Amino acid sequence: MIAVLTGGTGGAKFLQGVVRAVPPRQVTAIVNTGDDVVWWGLNISPDIDSVMYGLAGLLSRERGWGLEGDTFACLEHMRELGEPSWFQLGDRDLATHVRRTGMLRSGKTLTAVTAELAASFGVSSRLLPMTDDRVETRVLTARGELSFQEYFVREKWKVPVRKVRFAGAETARPTFEVLRAIASAEVIVIAPSNPITSIGPILAVPGIREALRSSPAQKVAVSPIISGKAFSGPADQLMVAHGFPATVAGVAAIYREFLSTLVIDHADAASVSEIEALGLRAVCASTLMNSEDAKRDLAAVCLAAGRSHTRAATNL
Amino acid sequence: MIAVLTGGTGGAKFLQGVVRAVPPRQVTAIVNTGDDVVWWGLNISPDIDSVMYGLAGLLSRERGWGLEGDTFACLEHMRELGEPSWFQLGDRDLATHVRRTGMLRSGKTLTAVTAELAASFGVSSRLLPMTDDRVETRVLTARGELSFQEYFVREKWKVPVRKVRFAGAETARPTFEVLRAIASAEVIVIAPSNPITSIGPILAVPGIREALRSSPAQKVAVSPIISGKAFSGPADQLMVAHGFPATVAGVAAIYREFLSTLVIDHADAASVSEIEALGLRAVCASTLMNSEDAKRDLAAVCLAAGRSHTRAATNL
Repeated sequence: MIAVLTGGTGGAKFLQGVVRAVPPRQVTAIVNTGDDVVWWGLNISPDIDSVMYGLAGLLSRERGWGLEGDTFACLEHMRELGEPSWFQLGDRDLATHVRRTGMLRSGKTLTAVTAELAASFGVSSRLLPMTDDRVETRVLTARGELSFQEYFVREKWKVPVRKVRFAGAETARPTFEVLRAIASAEVIVIAPSNPITSIGPILAVPGIREALRSSPAQKVAVSPIISGKAFSGPADQLMVAHGFPATVAGVAAIYREFLSTLVIDHADAASVSEIEALGLRAVCASTLMNSEDAKRDLAAVCLAAGRSHTRAATNL
Repeated sequence: MIAVLTGGTGGAKFLQGVVRAVPPRQVTAIVNTGDDVVWWGLNISPDIDSVMYGLAGLLSRERGWGLEGDTFACLEHMRELGEPSWFQLGDRDLATHVRRTGMLRSGKTLTAVTAELAASFGVSSRLLPMTDDRVETRVLTARGELSFQEYFVREKWKVPVRKVRFAGAETARPTFEVLRAIASAEVIVIAPSNPITSIGPILAVPGIREALRSSPAQKVAVSPIISGKAFSGPADQLMVAHGFPATVAGVAAIYREFLSTLVIDHADAASVSEIEALGLRAVCASTLMNSEDAKRDLAAVCLAAGRSHTRAATNL
């Protein structure tokens, strides 16, 4: 079984490649829920939905979130009625949030609800929220503390960030399912997601770092930083705010405590020795994920790296 | 001030005429909430919405419920995902239910929520739910007890009815706003709504019958029965199930305790004496509401009848 820690749009794209590299049933995604938000009274789990829609082949290619070809009549009406509408929900997408909210209200855990939703979309990989407890990513900015969605969607990550914290993380518990997936995985892959706001919340759940350290699996991360810049989103800014350089070595430093191998882009081949100096293996690959084949190939590199941990640094 | 007791699609159409006969600000609608339902986890108040959309000029003419020109992408997706979809909600309509649900969850009363929603639709008449408490219309049928929506929408009122009851009515309280509207109205009109399932729940709220009896206003009802048949819906069947003939005299008998005048269709002119024998005045009019002018004219007849209570039975 392959476990993938994931969040954000990069993680959703990466998982599309993983299920083309191995049978989908062998894949478990452990998904960030720090971005979850109650909006219009509905429980929204943006990262779970992106992974779910991505694996179902329904994720909007143009937007990178929501359902391909969705309409926005409800949202437009909300806007006409003077409601805040910066957080966009499509009409078909609404069905997911309405169903999730109803199931959560009936007393089911987010883990159980996610399994039901994923099954209804025909997704045969396992999707696990990082926790069933509430952990909220809070972004301390020059303009006060914002929720992640306020920072990312409303402010379009233009406001300078001082620090990110995960409210509720101290008392959150990892689920049995997440701990088991980590303990029993053959390879654990950290998707090319934002290390601070996508993977950070997962690692902030007490017990998950320990589980990663003690798991016998090889742990392979893909750097979301290419040539000193985030491929998309504010990962570079947030890494710097947290005292890490916005480089592949910075990514290595964040994960080094439990990581075996960091997959970096060919563009960063010169940094291999720097990563090796941190005690990690470095593998160079094409990390841009600009086609379905590229996604699959990147996933295959990660899995090969995880399975052949005795091999030296490879230039694939 | 004119108070109108209303429910169902007939009531919504009637109110469209009332606000063309008198300034909208002088109109208060006291609306049935016995049909309210929690669907997809959302608080739906179908009768309030029909009145609200009707007064805003947004009610679908074709369907008689929901918003004109609405789309159903969310509903279609729900259906694809295997969710029950017999109760139909449009995409733009969803905005209303999402907003209502959020406001109710924040602790506001249905009265306050309805006022906010109506204001956002530019409705200047007052819309009052009959109570802020939960009263649920339950329909005992040959196939067990159903909610009103199950009976009316899912079963298309084809299943024989034994009795209708209003669960929760015993402990419900009328709101201050409803009691004040009844006490201070110049004329109180009972819309041509189903007497059992649209007006019945309002009258079942303890204190409302007494308030109607003691109000100095003239009380004028419009018969929803024409020539022994309901113009639309199951009013005739339900009246019979409750021991009333499905005639204008049956309508008079249901309301006689507090009614001054019953407006009946010209087609029932022969029944005037039967109504007068019950101690009520009868006024004949065109009650079909098959045009905007017809709606306004019917409302004008009701208001004239309420204001000229000394006049004898008139054939307008």
